[in-house]
Amino acid sequence: MANVVVQNVERAAAEVIDGLARAGVATVHEAQGRRGCFASRMRPIQEGAAIAGSAVTISAPPGDNWMIHVAIEQLKAGDVLVLAPTSPCDNGYFGDLLATSAMARGCRGLVIDAGVRDTRDLRAMGFPVWSKAVSAEATVKKTLGSVNVQVVCGGQLVNAGDVIVADDDGVVVVRREEAEEVLAAAEKRLAAEEAKRARLASGELGLDIYDMRPRLEAKGLKYV
Amino acid sequence: MANVVVQNVERAAAEVIDGLARAGVATVHEAQGRRGCFASRMRPIQEGAAIAGSAVTISAPPGDNWMIHVAIEQLKAGDVLVLAPTSPCDNGYFGDLLATSAMARGCRGLVIDAGVRDTRDLRAMGFPVWSKAVSAEATVKKTLGSVNVQVVCGGQLVNAGDVIVADDDGVVVVRREEAEEVLAAAEKRLAAEEAKRARLASGELGLDIYDMRPRLEAKGLKYV
Amino acid sequence: MANVVVQNVERAAAEVIDGLARAGVATVHEAQGRRGCFASRMRPIQEGAAIAGSAVTISAPPGDNWMIHVAIEQLKAGDVLVLAPTSPCDNGYFGDLLATSAMARGCRGLVIDAGVRDTRDLRAMGFPVWSKAVSAEATVKKTLGSVNVQVVCGGQLVNAGDVIVADDDGVVVVRREEAEEVLAAAEKRLAAEEAKRARLASGELGLDIYDMRPRLEAKGLKYV
Amino acid sequence: MANVVVQNVERAAAEVIDGLARAGVATVHEAQGRRGCFASRMRPIQEGAAIAGSAVTISAPPGDNWMIHVAIEQLKAGDVLVLAPTSPCDNGYFGDLLATSAMARGCRGLVIDAGVRDTRDLRAMGFPVWSKAVSAEATVKKTLGSVNVQVVCGGQLVNAGDVIVADDDGVVVVRREEAEEVLAAAEKRLAAEEAKRARLASGELGLDIYDMRPRLEAKGLKYV
Amino acid sequence: MANVVVQNVERAAAEVIDGLARAGVATVHEAQGRRGCFASRMRPIQEGAAIAGSAVTISAPPGDNWMIHVAIEQLKAGDVLVLAPTSPCDNGYFGDLLATSAMARGCRGLVIDAGVRDTRDLRAMGFPVWSKAVSAEATVKKTLGSVNVQVVCGGQLVNAGDVIVADDDGVVVVRREEAEEVLAAAEKRLAAEEAKRARLASGELGLDIYDMRPRLEAKGLKYV
Amino acid sequence: MANVVVQNVERAAAEVIDGLARAGVATVHEAQGRRGCFASRMRPIQEGAAIAGSAVTISAPPGDNWMIHVAIEQLKAGDVLVLAPTSPCDNGYFGDLLATSAMARGCRGLVIDAGVRDTRDLRAMGFPVWSKAVSAEATVKKTLGSVNVQVVCGGQLVNAGDVIVADDDGVVVVRREEAEEVLAAAEKRLAAEEAKRARLASGELGLDIYDMRPRLEAKGLKYV
Repeated sequence: MANVVVQNVERAAAEVIDGLARAGVATVHEAQGRRGCFASRMRPIQEGAAIAGSAVTISAPPGDNWMIHVAIEQLKAGDVLVLAPTSPCDNGYFGDLLATSAMARGCRGLVIDAGVRDTRDLRAMGFPVWSKAVSAEATVKKTLGSVNVQVVCGGQLVNAGDVIVADDDGVVVVRREEAEEVLAAAEKRLAAEEAKRARLASGELGLDIYDMRPRLEAKGLKYV
Repeated sequence: MANVVVQNVERAAAEVIDGLARAGVATVHEAQGRRGCFASRMRPIQEGAAIAGSAVTISAPPGDNWMIHVAIEQLKAGDVLVLAPTSPCDNGYFGDLLATSAMARGCRGLVIDAGVRDTRDLRAMGFPVWSKAVSAEATVKKTLGSVNVQVVCGGQLVNAGDVIVADDDGVVVVRREEAEEVLAAAEKRLAAEEAKRARLASGELGLDIYDMRPRLEAKGLKYV
Repeated sequence: MANVVVQNVERAAAEVIDGLARAGVATVHEAQGRRGCFASRMRPIQEGAAIAGSAVTISAPPGDNWMIHVAIEQLKAGDVLVLAPTSPCDNGYFGDLLATSAMARGCRGLVIDAGVRDTRDLRAMGFPVWSKAVSAEATVKKTLGSVNVQVVCGGQLVNAGDVIVADDDGVVVVRREEAEEVLAAAEKRLAAEEAKRARLASGELGLDIYDMRPRLEAKGLKYV
Repeated sequence: MANVVVQNVERAAAEVIDGLARAGVATVHEAQGRRGCFASRMRPIQEGAAIAGSAVTISAPPGDNWMIHVAIEQLKAGDVLVLAPTSPCDNGYFGDLLATSAMARGCRGLVIDAGVRDTRDLRAMGFPVWSKAVSAEATVKKTLGSVNVQVVCGGQLVNAGDVIVADDDGVVVVRREEAEEVLAAAEKRLAAEEAKRARLASGELGLDIYDMRPRLEAKGLKYV
Repeated sequence: MANVVVQNVERAAAEVIDGLARAGVATVHEAQGRRGCFASRMRPIQEGAAIAGSAVTISAPPGDNWMIHVAIEQLKAGDVLVLAPTSPCDNGYFGDLLATSAMARGCRGLVIDAGVRDTRDLRAMGFPVWSKAVSAEATVKKTLGSVNVQVVCGGQLVNAGDVIVADDDGVVVVRREEAEEVLAAAEKRLAAEEAKRARLASGELGLDIYDMRPRLEAKGLKYV
Repeated sequence: MANVVVQNVERAAAEVIDGLARAGVATVHEAQGRRGCFASRMRPIQEGAAIAGSAVTISAPPGDNWMIHVAIEQLKAGDVLVLAPTSPCDNGYFGDLLATSAMARGCRGLVIDAGVRDTRDLRAMGFPVWSKAVSAEATVKKTLGSVNVQVVCGGQLVNAGDVIVADDDGVVVVRREEAEEVLAAAEKRLAAEEAKRARLASGELGLDIYDMRPRLEAKGLKYV
């Protein structure tokens, strides 16, 4: 089970993945029953990127980025790299050379529960990253890890092939086999929000739109 | 005392509030005797916003944003929402729908010792936020809290109606009843700084402008 | 040893310093044997600045910025201020007036393992800062510290006159006496990377370029 | 308002204070409507101490313990010192000499949102402390603060004379004017718990004792 | 998938579980290929407890401990409760009444990635706990969660029925279906360590016992 | 400079080292001008140990404990191991086998800015440790580091041969060449404290003993 590379990973349909990217992290998280949201330490190094892709997962030792090279070979167009160190580490596992290589394979971005470097170059290249840290601290290539195994990244379980959605709000994971259903729920939710947004913009209160007053009173809220 | 909404809150005069916004967080903090500065974990989600407004305070349970709807009804034009969870939490209590509603009531921004989401939309809408975290993690609407009671937010006591000043440096609170006096002190301070800035820009040293050399020597500073 | 100002500090050659700035933090860190990288808590308050300069070091008590005035007198054109508090503190030691003074002396930036304020002004002035925190919290001028002594800042030892390199990836320190040699190694490294970048961009894999497959197999990596 | 010592502080009745100590932190917190619990960073340096006392509050600059000497003069038998630094600091403000002095005045313990030292001696002396940190890092006596003003300590507002209850679970504050009522509620709660404890110990389930099953089912809990 | 209670969970054999408890956390972690170790924030509230048991897992909202009552009904003798909040929270979810109930069902302890309270009572009762925090902060019973679903606790994936091993070093999880094999590996490892311990105690060096000198020299270690 | 083992390290005199252990961390820190105190994250795994010894320093990669074996050969009776990872890591680098080996060489304890494991055994063996974390997480033996070079540990610079003093308050480092002078200052300080302790115990106030009242009044302290 240790030190394996799983090669044939199923992906969700491209149009489902792209739909989830359009829906965005917060909506997708709500639409799938408020699950899958990564810890808030996972921050974008850029502003305005909004992507989705199939997870190629990496389990790597602290301070060792060897497995990223192995993972890049497993990338298909539209994938997202997801790296979880086996213990907390904020070394800069990934920089512009690896990004060049990953982009050449069609990779859409990186989610890493560790550090990243060459951030200025990555922004210039348009390769988006969500990470726990920015750090130039180097890594070695000495110890094996695994690719496309289950990992826990940002406090969430990620399977190879799960859909990763990431934007300025952070990262959420959607199980591959639920992706289509989640997209449908997300789109429904977006449509419903549109109507509410208009009413709220006109000054109507959520208290009235959602009929909250009786329930608040029943629970004992007092106006003084 | 628990689960109340205080409805009639006094505010400071609008021109005082706007003057404090112009003075900025660092100057206001100094002008009131170096008090009221929020903890540095309270960070803006945008760059360049500089606001002041009267606090509408919210005390809310962890992971429950119900009281924000209640608070929005209490907003007057020029107010700022200030939310303190009753225990540490970084869920995303607030997003673009609530911002739409708050803006419709004239709200100038949000200060929240917890998480916020839809940050890209909030920036696009021009609704400024200072928060402890950015997170898409959802909240529920199950448990009451209070509105316009005393809260501790960012490590500082805030009363409803106190003036909140926020910019790229963070957040400071000014007691409503001291706001006018603090503004006067802040303006005096700004004027004094202007003269110093010119002298410093010309290469004169703070050591000389503030006559620090004798005191440094008396304390025993040695040049080697 | 306490409460001293060391006045005559050797600096590295200007062209070496400027070369290190061009090489950037990640490359310099690698080129000197993966040493000298500051902790990832040291973050830029701006995007895109990339500097190098000779360290003028400050050891200061928590919440006391008096020694910055003393240090500014010791600045020469091309220097960088490096402040380490004697115990952890995130007060805002430094703002636009001190930056005005430091810039008038030719200072290129500030690296501070504490807080900074007036960040909007500092960005507007083009004075770059790398800090642990942004905070308006004021400081006093009561207790002596030292200038141009050895300090530990961001977890790294810094001697007065060492070369500080800082960009979007953070901060790295280079010993003054090794600066020339490190620059040579950095430039060699940059040249080598150029060739690799082209190959990676064309889709060639790191696995092949660096001939990793036999070693991975020898270590026991399994493809399944 | 800055740099004052408030001398005549009302205290709650001694028997009420002692009753609250017996009830303990968790029960008192519940009994007063789940308010007043200090942040979990406030940890005891000893095991098994359980105290209550009237707060003598100290607002002190980072790294400056001068005001503790001033506060000790204000102590009456049965009081508890409560120190809040004006910005985060973990220096060791308090050690065995100050404890000797405080004990001589009848002080029951210290609650400090900063560091403490001489912890082995303090344990040997039987002087209990709840602190954010243990640190030998020294402090100075240079800058004024205040005694017996409102402070925010451990994230909670504390007024001079409020009752501080502290045990292995941490610290809770009770408003002086509510102390008697809170004690009554706490004692009632303890009595009620006694009966429940016996039933639970016999193997009866909370699900049945509190009649939770219908409500769980109504909310949609599924057994699979 | 949300809001379910899974009732029939397979457990590992009792003698395997007890063997893993005897082997201890560090040995078990090594024996299963260095997997499964919880984050170091998970600390025991007592010294010297060393347990193992089958996981009854709880996924609970922040600040809501309702599901613990539901989980207690699912406990069998020898089980360990494992609670993961759906977002970070350090409220005190669990105290002496719940421990009384859990012990009545044969529960061996609690592992909780949140807060615990009544810690003095829990120690007196001999009910061991590993938690992220100690806090008296109360919880509510309003929102459903799930019992015996997959959770991520302390950064590790836990399935209902997996074996939890916990001692002074923290917590490790062993997959139920691998438990027997891991125990065998752990016992082998313990035996091997015994021989090494004797040699090391006699002053022999690890450098010689493990024949490290040639490899260190080959890698370039220099003695100066 | 990288990957070296420095073999001939000067130590301070044994009686000086033992005197510093008796003086304790807080007193030694004060006696040497309030320098050298390690960050408060460095906590003892035991209560009541108080040691001093000559530092044998280790610089090690994250998650790699190979160099500890190399360092143990360099130990002389009375030494203390001091390990600093090259980037933050809380893996458990050290356990009972290494402690057995170190004790066989006369080692007095370990100070490690990372994790430690087998803590129950270490306490039973009487081998004291001060660490950043307790963790069973394993390490590898793949990458070289250095022994007896300058390191930054707990935020403090440590040279091989410097004196490490550690007790329940944490850790302080004393330069080898200053050790005798610092001991003299510490003993003087202890004698002076003895007299003060007696006066404070009798109820005399620090305000009077140190004649603070005039200076407090001059600074503007107001009694109200």
